[in-house]
Amino acid sequence: MDTVFASSTKKLPKSGKRRICFPITSRAYYGRSQLLIKKLHEHPDVDLELMLGGSILLDKYSRHIAEDIEAGGFTISTSLFNVIEGGNHVAMAKTACLTALEFTNGFHTADPDIVVICGDRFEQLAIAMAAAYLNRTIAHIEGGDVTGSIDESVRHAITKLAHLHFVTNEDARRRVLAMGEDPKYVFNTGSLDVEVASQLTGAITSDTVNRYGVGDAIDVARPFVLVIQHPVTTEADNGRHLEETLAAVTSLGLPAVWIWPNPDAGTGEMSERLRHFREQGRGVQAMRFITDVPVADFVALLRIAACLIGNSSAGIKECSYLGTPVVNIGGRQQGRLHADNVVHCGYDRAEIAAAARRQIAHGVYSSSNVYYRPAASQTIAGLLAGAELYTQKRFCDNTEASVRT
Amino acid sequence: MDTVFASSTKKLPKSGKRRICFPITSRAYYGRSQLLIKKLHEHPDVDLELMLGGSILLDKYSRHIAEDIEAGGFTISTSLFNVIEGGNHVAMAKTACLTALEFTNGFHTADPDIVVICGDRFEQLAIAMAAAYLNRTIAHIEGGDVTGSIDESVRHAITKLAHLHFVTNEDARRRVLAMGEDPKYVFNTGSLDVEVASQLTGAITSDTVNRYGVGDAIDVARPFVLVIQHPVTTEADNGRHLEETLAAVTSLGLPAVWIWPNPDAGTGEMSERLRHFREQGRGVQAMRFITDVPVADFVALLRIAACLIGNSSAGIKECSYLGTPVVNIGGRQQGRLHADNVVHCGYDRAEIAAAARRQIAHGVYSSSNVYYRPAASQTIAGLLAGAELYTQKRFCDNTEASVRT
Amino acid sequence: MDTVFASSTKKLPKSGKRRICFPITSRAYYGRSQLLIKKLHEHPDVDLELMLGGSILLDKYSRHIAEDIEAGGFTISTSLFNVIEGGNHVAMAKTACLTALEFTNGFHTADPDIVVICGDRFEQLAIAMAAAYLNRTIAHIEGGDVTGSIDESVRHAITKLAHLHFVTNEDARRRVLAMGEDPKYVFNTGSLDVEVASQLTGAITSDTVNRYGVGDAIDVARPFVLVIQHPVTTEADNGRHLEETLAAVTSLGLPAVWIWPNPDAGTGEMSERLRHFREQGRGVQAMRFITDVPVADFVALLRIAACLIGNSSAGIKECSYLGTPVVNIGGRQQGRLHADNVVHCGYDRAEIAAAARRQIAHGVYSSSNVYYRPAASQTIAGLLAGAELYTQKRFCDNTEASVRT
Amino acid sequence: MDTVFASSTKKLPKSGKRRICFPITSRAYYGRSQLLIKKLHEHPDVDLELMLGGSILLDKYSRHIAEDIEAGGFTISTSLFNVIEGGNHVAMAKTACLTALEFTNGFHTADPDIVVICGDRFEQLAIAMAAAYLNRTIAHIEGGDVTGSIDESVRHAITKLAHLHFVTNEDARRRVLAMGEDPKYVFNTGSLDVEVASQLTGAITSDTVNRYGVGDAIDVARPFVLVIQHPVTTEADNGRHLEETLAAVTSLGLPAVWIWPNPDAGTGEMSERLRHFREQGRGVQAMRFITDVPVADFVALLRIAACLIGNSSAGIKECSYLGTPVVNIGGRQQGRLHADNVVHCGYDRAEIAAAARRQIAHGVYSSSNVYYRPAASQTIAGLLAGAELYTQKRFCDNTEASVRT
Repeated sequence: MDTVFASSTKKLPKSGKRRICFPITSRAYYGRSQLLIKKLHEHPDVDLELMLGGSILLDKYSRHIAEDIEAGGFTISTSLFNVIEGGNHVAMAKTACLTALEFTNGFHTADPDIVVICGDRFEQLAIAMAAAYLNRTIAHIEGGDVTGSIDESVRHAITKLAHLHFVTNEDARRRVLAMGEDPKYVFNTGSLDVEVASQLTGAITSDTVNRYGVGDAIDVARPFVLVIQHPVTTEADNGRHLEETLAAVTSLGLPAVWIWPNPDAGTGEMSERLRHFREQGRGVQAMRFITDVPVADFVALLRIAACLIGNSSAGIKECSYLGTPVVNIGGRQQGRLHADNVVHCGYDRAEIAAAARRQIAHGVYSSSNVYYRPAASQTIAGLLAGAELYTQKRFCDNTEASVRT
Repeated sequence: MDTVFASSTKKLPKSGKRRICFPITSRAYYGRSQLLIKKLHEHPDVDLELMLGGSILLDKYSRHIAEDIEAGGFTISTSLFNVIEGGNHVAMAKTACLTALEFTNGFHTADPDIVVICGDRFEQLAIAMAAAYLNRTIAHIEGGDVTGSIDESVRHAITKLAHLHFVTNEDARRRVLAMGEDPKYVFNTGSLDVEVASQLTGAITSDTVNRYGVGDAIDVARPFVLVIQHPVTTEADNGRHLEETLAAVTSLGLPAVWIWPNPDAGTGEMSERLRHFREQGRGVQAMRFITDVPVADFVALLRIAACLIGNSSAGIKECSYLGTPVVNIGGRQQGRLHADNVVHCGYDRAEIAAAARRQIAHGVYSSSNVYYRPAASQTIAGLLAGAELYTQKRFCDNTEASVRT
Repeated sequence: MDTVFASSTKKLPKSGKRRICFPITSRAYYGRSQLLIKKLHEHPDVDLELMLGGSILLDKYSRHIAEDIEAGGFTISTSLFNVIEGGNHVAMAKTACLTALEFTNGFHTADPDIVVICGDRFEQLAIAMAAAYLNRTIAHIEGGDVTGSIDESVRHAITKLAHLHFVTNEDARRRVLAMGEDPKYVFNTGSLDVEVASQLTGAITSDTVNRYGVGDAIDVARPFVLVIQHPVTTEADNGRHLEETLAAVTSLGLPAVWIWPNPDAGTGEMSERLRHFREQGRGVQAMRFITDVPVADFVALLRIAACLIGNSSAGIKECSYLGTPVVNIGGRQQGRLHADNVVHCGYDRAEIAAAARRQIAHGVYSSSNVYYRPAASQTIAGLLAGAELYTQKRFCDNTEASVRT
Repeated sequence: MDTVFASSTKKLPKSGKRRICFPITSRAYYGRSQLLIKKLHEHPDVDLELMLGGSILLDKYSRHIAEDIEAGGFTISTSLFNVIEGGNHVAMAKTACLTALEFTNGFHTADPDIVVICGDRFEQLAIAMAAAYLNRTIAHIEGGDVTGSIDESVRHAITKLAHLHFVTNEDARRRVLAMGEDPKYVFNTGSLDVEVASQLTGAITSDTVNRYGVGDAIDVARPFVLVIQHPVTTEADNGRHLEETLAAVTSLGLPAVWIWPNPDAGTGEMSERLRHFREQGRGVQAMRFITDVPVADFVALLRIAACLIGNSSAGIKECSYLGTPVVNIGGRQQGRLHADNVVHCGYDRAEIAAAARRQIAHGVYSSSNVYYRPAASQTIAGLLAGAELYTQKRFCDNTEASVRT
C-alpha cells in the first residue's frame, strides 16, 4: 500500500502467526471444508479468519452453520451481504463484482498472508481477483478438473491467479502443470469432500429425512433414488432439461428424495417446474423435496441411495468412494475424471430412465480412490501453515517442446 | 436471461449484424487499437460498440481522443467513470470490481455477440469476468505472453475466460495451447501495436515535443534518450527503483524525454521522486517530462530515440520492428519474447548506465518480425466478423502425455 | 459535466421535448402511477423514460407489468437488478446505495430535465440523492405526509432534495411549506392512488381471487376481511406483531384474504409465522394468501372487503374514498391525515378483534375527499410538462416569526 | 437485524459504554472536529470509533493527520477508499453511493449507538442515509444554516434523517424547528470551527507559509489578502467566475495567499485557470498557491489577513469571531447568518475589487458571537454521551397554524 492511511487502518493485530483468510460463500463449501477449518483453527502457527459472504448468509440452515461454527470455537471475522436478486446472469455477474468489492475491504483490514479460494463458484473467481490485486498469496483448492458450465472457465482462471494448488486427482495435477504452474507448488492432496464422506459414517433415519423439506414421507430402509440437478448457467434450457429428469424419475417405480437446485442463473425456471409438479401432485411414488440438509445427513443419503441421478459433483467425487451408482446427466460434469460408478447420459427421459434402471440393478460399486488420499485436510493445513509464500507468478514451461496443434 | 424484464430492457436494436462490444480503458489501448477499430467500423457485417471506462476518461488528452473518435465516425455507446482514487492496491482492486459491475449493465443493454478484451490491464480481467458470466463470446488480444508484475496473472486468467485468441507471436501461441485452448480458435495475427508503428511513419519536430509536458526544451535533431518506467504493482520499491534510473539517465550526458509513469498502484512514490527531482533542478542535461502524447508522435519518438530506457512493452514490441536500442529494467517484461534490440538489466544505476551507453554506441538494430505480421488489424477484424461463436469452454489437451514435472 | 467525455457519451438524442425520467421500483408504484404514466406518454411536450429497478424486476407479476407497459406503448429505457438479498437492514441499506449508483449512470445517459420521485420507499431517497448531485430538477409525489417507520424520515428528506412537490392533501402541503419549500412549487393535486381507485370500478369474482396465491377458496359474494400488514423496519417485533393480527383475524368468524408482507427488513420473521400458520392449518375460517394482485383487482377487493385490517396506506388513502372500514394497526401510518373510516389500535389481539368487529358492524362509510381531487394525473402531467425548472434550492421562510419551541 | 449471521459477525465487542461512530471524510472536517474528538475520546462513558473515507485519505497532508490522530491516542477503526475520479457530477454522485455502501458494512460491524454526521458535504448525506436505514440514532452538527450550492439541499435532507441536532446559531435553530424537529433534541451549541479558532491563538511566520504550496514567497508581516474560492457544484461557470476573482485580486496591489479549490464537481476548470495563470506568470504582486495547511496555521492566516476573498464558510464563521474583513462572492454562502465583517458581491471583477479595497481600508472588525458559544465541543460531547436515544422520528408541528403561503 502506498499511503500512510492504507497502513493505519485498524488492522487485525498481527499475532506473529501466519494469517489465513478463508472466504466461504456457500453451504456446500462449508460442509466440505469443515475438517480443514478445524485443522487450521487448531494449528499452532495459523491465525484463521473465516469470512462469510454470498449465499451462505441467506441459507435457511445458516442458523445451524453459525451454531456449528461457534461450537467449533471458530470466529467469523466478517459477514457480507452481497447477493443480488434475480436468479439470472446479470444478477450473477453483479453479485460477483459486489462480492469482490467488499472482500477487498475485508482483506485490506485482515491483512492476510494467504487467501484460500475453494472450488469454482463464480464469486470465488471475483474474490481471487481481489486478493491477487492486493498482492496476497492465493491458495486454490480443487483446481485442474474439467467440467461443463461456466465453472470450467472459472476454475482455470482461478488457477492462473493462484500460487498454491491443492488438486484432488492426478488428471487435475497434470492440467495445472500444463497451464504453466510451478510443480513445486502443485499438490495432489485428494478431495476434501471425499475425506469428509469417508469420516461421516453415521446412518440416517426416515424420521430425520422427513423432518427436512416438504412432500411425501420417505422410508429410507427401502430403496429410493436421490436426485440433484443444478442449473447449468451456460445452457438455455434448464427448465426443459429438468422436465426430462422429472419424467424419468417418476417412471422408475421408486420413491425419490429430490435436493432443490442451487440458486444460480437458470434456477428460476427449474424451481417453477418443480413447484408446478408438486402442486399438480403428479407423482405416483413418494417424492420429497429438500432444500438443505446438514453434511452428515447428506453423506448418509448418498451412501444408501439406490442411485444418484442428476449433475452434482457428489456423484463424481463422494460417490466414487462410497460406491453409490450414479446417472450423470448432461454437460455439467463433462470430462471430469470419474470411477466406474458413473454412467453418463443426455437430457432425454428414456435414456435417463434406462440408465437409472441399469444402475439400480447393478447395486453398490467397490470403493475407488481416484479422489481419495488419506488426511487431505491435515496435508493442506500443514502446507498452508508452512509452505514458502510468493506473489509474483511466472509461467512455468512444463510441457515438451512439441505441443500438439 | 430468465425474466421477462431482463429481456425487455430497451436494448440496442439488433441490426442483423454481429454486434461487437469493445471496452477501452486506457489511452494506450485506444492508440494501439485504432486500426482495428477502423476496420471493424467499416466492416459490413459488424455493428461496433465502443465502451469507455477507467483511466481513459480521466486522461488529459481525452479531449483529443473524443475528437478523434468522432472524426472517425465511431460512436461511444457508453462512458463509465469508475476509477477509485488512491493509487494503491486497494483502490486498484476496487476500481476493477466497480468497472466490472458497471460493464455488466452495459453489456446487458448492448447485448453483444462478442466482447473484445485487450491485453492485460487489471480492469480488463474484471470486464472479461463480467462478459463470461453473461455468457458472451470473449475475444482476447495479446494473450500468451509472459511478463512480470500482476499483468502476468491477469493475462493468463483472461485467456482461460476467452474463446477467441489473437496472439502476437509464436511463443505466445504455444503457451495458450499448453493452457488448454482449442487450436482452431488460437490465431497468431502479429501485434496491433507493431502494425500501428509500421504505418505511422511521420516525423516529429522539436516544436511538437516541446509543446507537450513540462521541463527543458529538447532538440530532437540531436541524440536523446527516451525513458518510460511504469510502476510494477507487485513490487514494493517502485520509488527507489525510479531513483536508480534517474541517476543513470542523468549520468549519460544526453538530453532525455521522460514519459510519466502509468497511474497504477505504486505511481505515487514514483511521481513524488520525479517531482522532487524537477523542483531541485538537479539535472545538467536537458530533461522534459511528458504525461501524454498522441500515438503518432509517440511512435515518432520511439523511432528516433538513441535508446529507450525503462520497462515499457513498447521497448519489446514496437522497438523490435523499429530497431530502436532498448535497455529493459527489472522484472516487468521478464520472460517476454524479444528481438536483439533489447538488453536487460536490474535496478542498479551503474548497470543501467553501462547498458545504455553500449546500446547508444551500437545504434539502430535491423528490423525484426517477431511481433509483426502484415495486416494484423484486417485479420482480426475478419475473424471477429466471421469466426464461429461458442460459449461453453472445454479444456483441450494439446500437450504430450509426458508433462515434465 | 466538466469533461468532454461526460458529454460525448451516446446520450439519448434530444427531441426538443422536456425529458422526464420516471424511476419505478415497486409494483405498487407502477399500479398507482399508471394514469400519470399514460398522461405523460401522451403529452406532446414530454419525452418519457421509464426506468425500472429494485423489487419490481423480481416480482412474480413482473411479466404482467411488462406486457402492460408494452401494451401501453411505453418504453422501458433501462432495467437494473440491484436488490441485495437478506431481508434485513444491512441488505436494505446496501440495496439503496447500489440502486443510486446505477441510476446515476442511467441519468447520465438519459440526461433528463426532470426526475420524478414517488412516495417514500427507501430506494427512492437514494435515487433522489443521485439526481440531486447530477443537478437535475426533482419532482416529488406524495410528500408532506406523516407516518411511522423509516418512511417518515425518507419522505421528508426527499422533500428537502426536491424542487416540485405534488402533495395529496392540505395537511401535507402545510408541512412541506413549514419545511421551507417555496409555495409556488408546492401543489396539492390529490392522490394518484385515490384517482386510480376512483376510476377502477370493475368488480372481482371469486374465480379471479382464487386464481391468485395459495390457501382456501374464498367466496367474495359473502363478507370477508382483507389483511395487509407490512413490516415496520424501525421496529424489532414484526413477527410477534403479526401473531397478534393472526390471532385477531382467526377469531372474527369471517373468511380472510391476506396480502403477503412487502419484502422490506423484517419480512423474514413475518413470512415465517405466516408459513408456519399455514402448515399447521390452524384456521377454522377460510384463509387465502396472496403475494401479488393486479391493481384493478386490488381496488375491487378494497371496495368489497367488510373491513381492511393491517397497516397499509391503502387503508388511509384509497379506503377514505371507497368508504371501506379500516382497522389500522401500530405505528406505520401514525399521524397521517385520515377520514372517518379508520380506527387505530395497537399490537394487541383483543384490541384488534374488537375494533374489527365494530368496523364490520358499522359497514361502509360515506366517501371522503381528503385525498381526492379530480384529474390528479392530468394536473401533475401538465405541471411536469410546463412548470418552470430550477435546481438551486433556497430555504423559504414560510412560517411566522414565532416558532413555538 | 433479522438473521443469525447478521448478529454473529465479529462485531466490535461492547464495552458497556455508548459507542459513537464518527465518519470523517475531509481534512476540513477533521480540523474543525479536533476538540470534539478529543472530548469524546476522553469521555468515560463513550467508546469512540473514527471512520475515515472520501477525500481525507487522498489528501497530501493525510500523513500529518494520521500522525496527529495517533499522537492523540485515537484509533481509526476503518479507512475506506471510495472517491471516484472525474471531478464532475457523475463522479461525485457515484462517490456518494459507494461511500454509503461501504459505510453500511462499517456500521454493521461497529454496531454504534450513535452516528455523528458533520456539516453538508455530499457524501455525508449518503452516510446518514445508510445509518438511518440501519436504525441508528444520527447526530447532526451544523444543521439549519442556509447557503447556496447543493450543500443547501444536502444539509436540510440530513436534518430530516437526524435525531439530535447541534446547530451553531439561533437562525439555524429556528429553521430546524420549522422543519419539524422536536425542540428537546435541537441544541444551539455554537460552532466547532469558531471554538477551534478561538483557541488556536498561535501566530504564523513567513517561513512557515512559504514552506506550503508553490509560488512566490509571502511576507506575512505585511498586509496580504487570503483567497479561498471553492467550486459551486450547482453552477456551470466556475472557471469564468474564478477568472473574475483572479483579475480582482491581481488589481489590489497586495500579495495574496491563495488556497486551492476543493476537489468537488467543477474543480477541474478552476484548477486549469489557476495553473494557466501561474504558468503565464501574469501577476505583478507576489502570489502563493497552497493546497493544504494545518488547521492552526489556517486560523493564524485568517486572523492576520487584510481581507479574506472568496466563498469559504470560514469567512462567515471563523472570521465573524476573529473580526477579519471578508468579501464573500456569489451564491455559495447565500442567505447564511453573518456578522458585520462580511460584504457580499457578485462574480464581477470590478465589484470584487471595490469591495476588497473598502474592506482592507476598514480593517479588523470587532469580534461577534453569532456563531460562538463557550465550550461547544464539551457541550456536544456531553449530549452525545448522555442524551436519550431514539430512532423513530415524528414530524413535530412547531409552527403557528398560520403558515404564510
